[in-house]
Amino acid sequence: MDCIFCKIISGQLPCMKVYEDEHALVFMDIVGDVDGHMVAVPKKHVENILDCDRECLHRLMSAVKEVSDHCVQTCGYDGINLLNASGTSAGQSVPHFHIHIIPRRKDDGIDAWPGFEGAKEDPAKVWELLKR
Amino acid sequence: MDCIFCKIISGQLPCMKVYEDEHALVFMDIVGDVDGHMVAVPKKHVENILDCDRECLHRLMSAVKEVSDHCVQTCGYDGINLLNASGTSAGQSVPHFHIHIIPRRKDDGIDAWPGFEGAKEDPAKVWELLKR
Repeated sequence: MDCIFCKIISGQLPCMKVYEDEHALVFMDIVGDVDGHMVAVPKKHVENILDCDRECLHRLMSAVKEVSDHCVQTCGYDGINLLNASGTSAGQSVPHFHIHIIPRRKDDGIDAWPGFEGAKEDPAKVWELLKR
Repeated sequence: MDCIFCKIISGQLPCMKVYEDEHALVFMDIVGDVDGHMVAVPKKHVENILDCDRECLHRLMSAVKEVSDHCVQTCGYDGINLLNASGTSAGQSVPHFHIHIIPRRKDDGIDAWPGFEGAKEDPAKVWELLKR
């Protein structure tokens, strides 16, 4: 398996491990874009939320919550941002499901909201497509 | 309860409903920042991931996955972005747990990644604080 996150999970590649349980691993993202940036991954190789079964998703989110709670209860943070890109069209770069965790502090100067340029379509029109 | 999302859930305020089950509701975000913008909320009032129990989190994520799958399998999208702000320091505006869902298409011109300005600290130093 030529997946960089699978190699980190198996120990073939090193990581700065923050949390690990039977089903998930959380480690520091080393891209250096924002302080405290972590990624949470399922140990099982699934590409993203679209091909992940519910059990796998729930276990990953339990790990995300575990780390979020730890950041706030123990490490002096008071907020958390979560980000996920599922699919190349969404900007997913590594094709192994991962949720970005960014711990936040008041006045840390970080803007974790994308610079969306405004909707082009009326939400009511898009809703016609999306509603079930 | 003076919570706008609780009022939407109870039907006191209208919404463009995309999905509903016993525990969660997904509806169109009408802020108009990006096409297809939805929010997924637990029906139970919890503020964010930090005060949400695991069962509530899992149920919310099941709804998020349900809608994500629907977007890709039925509505012609091929990717999904998820965003969450937990805590005012993270930019949370409505104090009722919500996960933003943005369905994506190839070449839709959306950049859903925040414009992070670069880490100020060495990840290894932050890791010393975060690791358990």
